[in-house]
Amino acid sequence: MALTFDLKATDGAARLGEVGTARGVVRTPAFMPVGTAGTVKGMLPGQVRGTGADIVLGNTYHLMLRPGAERVARLGGLHRFSGWEGPILTDSGGFQVMSLAGLRKITEEGVRFASHVDGTRHFLSPERSMEIQALLGSDIAMCFDECPALPAGRDRIAASMEMSMRWAARSREAFGHPGDRALFGIQQGGLEEDLRRESAERLREIGFEGYAVGGLAVGEGQEAMFGVLDHAPAQLPANRPRYLMGVGKPDDVVGAVKRGIDMMDCVLPTRSGRTGQGWTARGMVNLRNARHRDDPRPLEEGCPCPACAGGYSRAFLHHVVRSKEMIGGMLLTWHNLTYYGRLMAAMRGAIGAGRFADWERGFHARRAEGDLEPV
Amino acid sequence: MALTFDLKATDGAARLGEVGTARGVVRTPAFMPVGTAGTVKGMLPGQVRGTGADIVLGNTYHLMLRPGAERVARLGGLHRFSGWEGPILTDSGGFQVMSLAGLRKITEEGVRFASHVDGTRHFLSPERSMEIQALLGSDIAMCFDECPALPAGRDRIAASMEMSMRWAARSREAFGHPGDRALFGIQQGGLEEDLRRESAERLREIGFEGYAVGGLAVGEGQEAMFGVLDHAPAQLPANRPRYLMGVGKPDDVVGAVKRGIDMMDCVLPTRSGRTGQGWTARGMVNLRNARHRDDPRPLEEGCPCPACAGGYSRAFLHHVVRSKEMIGGMLLTWHNLTYYGRLMAAMRGAIGAGRFADWERGFHARRAEGDLEPV
Repeated sequence: MALTFDLKATDGAARLGEVGTARGVVRTPAFMPVGTAGTVKGMLPGQVRGTGADIVLGNTYHLMLRPGAERVARLGGLHRFSGWEGPILTDSGGFQVMSLAGLRKITEEGVRFASHVDGTRHFLSPERSMEIQALLGSDIAMCFDECPALPAGRDRIAASMEMSMRWAARSREAFGHPGDRALFGIQQGGLEEDLRRESAERLREIGFEGYAVGGLAVGEGQEAMFGVLDHAPAQLPANRPRYLMGVGKPDDVVGAVKRGIDMMDCVLPTRSGRTGQGWTARGMVNLRNARHRDDPRPLEEGCPCPACAGGYSRAFLHHVVRSKEMIGGMLLTWHNLTYYGRLMAAMRGAIGAGRFADWERGFHARRAEGDLEPV
Repeated sequence: MALTFDLKATDGAARLGEVGTARGVVRTPAFMPVGTAGTVKGMLPGQVRGTGADIVLGNTYHLMLRPGAERVARLGGLHRFSGWEGPILTDSGGFQVMSLAGLRKITEEGVRFASHVDGTRHFLSPERSMEIQALLGSDIAMCFDECPALPAGRDRIAASMEMSMRWAARSREAFGHPGDRALFGIQQGGLEEDLRRESAERLREIGFEGYAVGGLAVGEGQEAMFGVLDHAPAQLPANRPRYLMGVGKPDDVVGAVKRGIDMMDCVLPTRSGRTGQGWTARGMVNLRNARHRDDPRPLEEGCPCPACAGGYSRAFLHHVVRSKEMIGGMLLTWHNLTYYGRLMAAMRGAIGAGRFADWERGFHARRAEGDLEPV
């Protein structure tokens, strides 16, 4: 099989495992940094790897528009092009073209849309998405699907889910079983438990190497998302990895792992690093805030990242963020991915030791303490 | 003395040496990357050091406005603040406030000006510039001076030079002889050989740990600049380092070394890296150009920088430059500083071996070959 999943331990619904790919192992629960256009913004591949990331995500939508999937293929594929040698997961482009409100037209066949780069017209379908992901050479490809923003009416959610399941079958058919590359199905159904179950059954009938929980983190809020995660993961095959798409903040990530999610991705640690936000065990620190301008202390005591262990003060980080210096986004991105990497490692350790509930209490207690005392 | 200069070899007018400071040795001829606001843009200090740079430059004007010299001092000085542990040279702020045409007023006392950051009113004088550079804790400080853009009338140049020499005496007086920090005088006089000689004599009378050739690279062109460098360095003490401010492109740098310059600084390799330009032994490569979009070859064969040795293609660099990805500026800055570092090392080797003229012929011959053949 193109992808193995070794479930090593469970602790409540939380799972410790290893996903095996042709390009190496992904320790789960895993957080996947997002490398939208062939680069995790502000980071070199070796630096990303050093934060504990085993796998990164690439975006079909961005890469098909620029530099173009056929071009990436001629240049040896996305791994060689981007310099990231480990596993890569590509999304299908579906979610991003759906977000082009007013600029796209959805039919049963697929989606016609205009590029945000140069306005040129493009078409994505299950077949073309599979072709693009093959050209990029990702280790894990995602089915081409569709989902509404929430809240949405049940009829809209049901119709969308049903089309996504027909697209899932077309995706599987087009993708085939190439041996060294895997395809994940995506469960839809909004906040409706029965639609989620139906979607899961349709996906199991088709058969995939892994299963994603899709259509969340689209406006429903954490409580509603956790409500879905209380039942959705268990509807998916236990012997295959479960991927929650587009999540999230640290407490979202912890809550998802607690509920049986194995893989996640989100732009949050990278994007917020570029706007001056540093994530720590005691919460988010906004380095733009003037209270940091004379603070000689590191962003997070004990953190091994170059921003914290490199001797940089909060005052320096404040200065470079305010001055729009590149090093501000570089250091805070590095810190944030390091924090996420340590968070995932801590959860894996806790699950393996059967102490996840204790660990989770400590996680919330540290956050409740809030940021450092005044200097 | 706060600064030693060990002249190890000469080859024609070119000189091989070592400048000794409290924070380490600077191998000369040396190129100093510019770290305007406490950071060499897009680079961490260890990465800058890895390109072969022994010393970096910091800008008094930028740092006094943000984060403020007194604040940097409270935070332990510019070395600790910025994470660069090697020698730092600070300019006096004079050149930059002079460039604020319309926003500054020059008198014998000093210069009143408005901040480009927030419009607040500030004052710089020889005394205040020395105070700021002491607060920053730079290893080499520069006299506060003034110079006109070229071309300029002889009377304007003479009057400006004479005021700069009065300011040089005030700078020396205010700076004192702190023992662990050095002060460089700055020769002025435009393109006028006799004014340059007079300026040099006035500076020698005052006495400095090193001497800069100022007032060049301000619009006069390479031929006129080399014309000045044919006589100006020899007007300065042979047993002290000679620093050419704000220069330059690789062929400017080579021509300056040939004429007896020991130290230089310029934003070119860093700034042009952020706009997609890569400097190589065969000339400048504009990665924005569409001819690179399918080119699998590295920017420069044999270069040890992460852009070239890291396996990145010109096609990738083109893509990230066009996509405005941070990694484009990061990689090209790194490459350009690596190229400058290798260029300086090659010149030091050639001078030490008495082969500078041969080396220079090879330098120009490689550039004449131009960039790579088409794929």
